[in-house]
Amino acid sequence: MFESAELGHAIDEETFDREAPALREALLEAQYELKQQGRFPVIILINGVEGAGKGETVKLLNEWMDPRLIQVSTFDQQTDEERSRPPAWRFWRQLPPKGRIGIFFGNWYSQMLQGRVHGHFKNAVLDQAIDGALNLEQMLCDEGALIFKFWFHLSKKQMKARLKSLRDDPLHSWRISPLDWQQSETYDRFVRYGERVLRRTSRDFAPWYVVEGADEYYRSLMVGRILLDGLQAALKSKARRPVQPHVAPLTASLDNRGLLDSLDMTQALEKEDYQEQLTTEQARLAGLMRDKRMRRHALVAVFEGNDAAGKGGAIRRVAAALDPRQYRIVPIAAPTEEERAQPYLWRFWRHVPARGNFTVFDRSWYGRVLVERVEGFCEPADWLRAYSEINDFEEQLSEAGVVVVKFWLAIDEDTQYQRFKEREQIAFKRFKITEEDWRNRDKWQDYCDAVGDMVDRTSTAIAPWTLVEANDKRFARVKVLRTINEALEKAFAKD
Amino acid sequence: MFESAELGHAIDEETFDREAPALREALLEAQYELKQQGRFPVIILINGVEGAGKGETVKLLNEWMDPRLIQVSTFDQQTDEERSRPPAWRFWRQLPPKGRIGIFFGNWYSQMLQGRVHGHFKNAVLDQAIDGALNLEQMLCDEGALIFKFWFHLSKKQMKARLKSLRDDPLHSWRISPLDWQQSETYDRFVRYGERVLRRTSRDFAPWYVVEGADEYYRSLMVGRILLDGLQAALKSKARRPVQPHVAPLTASLDNRGLLDSLDMTQALEKEDYQEQLTTEQARLAGLMRDKRMRRHALVAVFEGNDAAGKGGAIRRVAAALDPRQYRIVPIAAPTEEERAQPYLWRFWRHVPARGNFTVFDRSWYGRVLVERVEGFCEPADWLRAYSEINDFEEQLSEAGVVVVKFWLAIDEDTQYQRFKEREQIAFKRFKITEEDWRNRDKWQDYCDAVGDMVDRTSTAIAPWTLVEANDKRFARVKVLRTINEALEKAFAKD
Repeated sequence: MFESAELGHAIDEETFDREAPALREALLEAQYELKQQGRFPVIILINGVEGAGKGETVKLLNEWMDPRLIQVSTFDQQTDEERSRPPAWRFWRQLPPKGRIGIFFGNWYSQMLQGRVHGHFKNAVLDQAIDGALNLEQMLCDEGALIFKFWFHLSKKQMKARLKSLRDDPLHSWRISPLDWQQSETYDRFVRYGERVLRRTSRDFAPWYVVEGADEYYRSLMVGRILLDGLQAALKSKARRPVQPHVAPLTASLDNRGLLDSLDMTQALEKEDYQEQLTTEQARLAGLMRDKRMRRHALVAVFEGNDAAGKGGAIRRVAAALDPRQYRIVPIAAPTEEERAQPYLWRFWRHVPARGNFTVFDRSWYGRVLVERVEGFCEPADWLRAYSEINDFEEQLSEAGVVVVKFWLAIDEDTQYQRFKEREQIAFKRFKITEEDWRNRDKWQDYCDAVGDMVDRTSTAIAPWTLVEANDKRFARVKVLRTINEALEKAFAKD
Repeated sequence: MFESAELGHAIDEETFDREAPALREALLEAQYELKQQGRFPVIILINGVEGAGKGETVKLLNEWMDPRLIQVSTFDQQTDEERSRPPAWRFWRQLPPKGRIGIFFGNWYSQMLQGRVHGHFKNAVLDQAIDGALNLEQMLCDEGALIFKFWFHLSKKQMKARLKSLRDDPLHSWRISPLDWQQSETYDRFVRYGERVLRRTSRDFAPWYVVEGADEYYRSLMVGRILLDGLQAALKSKARRPVQPHVAPLTASLDNRGLLDSLDMTQALEKEDYQEQLTTEQARLAGLMRDKRMRRHALVAVFEGNDAAGKGGAIRRVAAALDPRQYRIVPIAAPTEEERAQPYLWRFWRHVPARGNFTVFDRSWYGRVLVERVEGFCEPADWLRAYSEINDFEEQLSEAGVVVVKFWLAIDEDTQYQRFKEREQIAFKRFKITEEDWRNRDKWQDYCDAVGDMVDRTSTAIAPWTLVEANDKRFARVKVLRTINEALEKAFAKD
């Protein structure tokens, strides 16, 4: 969930100075239009890791826009008046009216996270708080509000560096956080429970935007751009509720550093090393699948990737290690008639493996947020809600002991071109290449955006994505096998 | 929540025989139309108290409709196959396809309720299960499914009689329930947690229908009618998702015995008794408000009722008992400009009393499901979602120690007519009667339906409705005061 926000995104001063003025002007204009229309309020929630630029961003938004139309609320200590009423009262009294922007700093999420990190309660109570938050947000959106939720993130290393520099800065050293961020464990717990909160509260009507906070320029432009896109979409829609203001990619590739761009695509294996490592990993997998601890688990492997990235070959190398009675490969193409008569996830639920078994999905439920999104086969409302439906599905698998591994096999455009050409030459591979495959290449960037969103919104501790550098097929196959083995060993170790 | 289902609803055989054939025919026709359109599946959940006719109703539906297009699923013991997969797998595999009806008997709700009643887990875990159910239902509805949730109810007395007769019947005596219903406490716990589940899972897209199960004819016609109304609405709508199939009143007054009809409107107090009881109750209230245990509580009293039912007079008698610094009367008329710029509940949240204090709402948040519903001031989607928003709001009040009492002051049509006429005669009361009041009388039955729905969907253990027979003002005033006093004493006793 935080993968994209640990890439070291950065923008140079020159680019920032060139882009910021236009963004400011557009934001200001949107803000006046918001006031003019007076149809809905905007609520901005600010959360995330200490030192990731939350306060600075709020300050900046007030500079960029008209501060008379923004009200910033902090919710640190409860006042006497607040303490003597239900907890939500303090939020209700600070709601911005229609036409205005309210920035909620230290909101309902901060409080539930602090409580959980401090160990004041367990997950069941955290989940109750999460429900309360979702009910409130759902109601606000039903009443017309436009909600942006920003999570400012830093990697642990970045945070430590940042805390050190803040401590030395007299302007900041007085700040006291309710959590002791100097403790390494605080970060780990905060991020772990943060992920749980984000996973469960990212909904189509109010998704989370995770922003890497290390670079001031990047962070500022990102937040400004997301706000502007959402505001403009909502202002343009004539419906009583802002309709689908959150369809833009989560991480507009501002600095051209998407997750996929961060891969080292030159990685490769020599034939000999490959043979040796392949055999080792295959034997390891065979052993793990026969391990008696496997009786308490099942295994699901999802294969997605660019066309011609080598999914089939990788799957064959996995299968080769196994007893055919223990695994099943489910190729996902167009749904059957029976499947079309059922909810989207039904065709995947029916193939969930029993304990002790392994199902390989050659393409998967992620089709909805990839091909169906990009090709417009479903409405934005459908693929937007799919993220939480999918997270919910995978959580159910995980809770039942199913180990879920998900692969995106990535190749670059040139490699794909070569492979397409080769396929056209080889008789028995010609069936693998169609006109459609060539057409899909025109949408390369759209697919990159969709993959970035997908990973950001569905890579979780319980079911992480593994991006596989697949320009070299041998490297890819070994990485796939090794990842599966590591996931199984990790699950066994926890038993 | 179960008030309407403990009235002793019944329909005579003759009426049943007259009405059933047309209902069967219409249901069958709707069923074929459903198949013909093949646009959405129908899922019927069957839950409720033991012996309330669940099995009989499922049997009847299969007789009335074409059983080839209905699949009935029971979920008692898990099979081996099911046990080795995530818990939801067994529900997914039984989902009816588009165009078909699936009856789920012993579904996700039965399981969470059994677990809670048996004490296998506490409320926080129950709430997690509730979430899971809501996510599933939300997703199914987003995918187009039409869901009916029936809760078959019996009062404790009715259930005991029913169990006795079942035990003596060789056709039924073999049935074994996972709960021991012979134990009086089982019923209490089941109904208490049942209410929690119903309150939290009754949503506009899939509300609960509570059906009194004692009388076979009544129960059958009710279920048939609700299904038919919902099916027809969904079949008529051309949208991809069935739009608002649940707008019909929850308790169509089949036997002309709504909640309001069950009141004994002849109750009255002699002047002398009134004076004595009024003074007693006022003194009791004054004492309770000064009690030091009041520091941990606040009090909210909601007054709704027919026009000219005497809300103002009753409120004055309450206020007369109190120190003006301790209470506040909030009259709810048309919202101010500031209030219109905020979500619906905002104007009520702002008047939530601090601990130790008392707020009287002269009309309230229930306006949305009464006047706004009947007069069409808001969309069905808005008043339908209001029920759960209101229950959620009142739960938050209750959890913060606020005691919530809600009054519906009921008078009959004749009494209202007389009072209107009197008001027109008396100079200082003439301002109280307008053309609109006269017009509202034309919608008497619509208001009755709305009040019935409101009480059924929002009368909860934490914030119950009190129906006040107000043809006699003296009787009404004393009943109001006494109810407030009892609610406070009950809350104090629990501390």
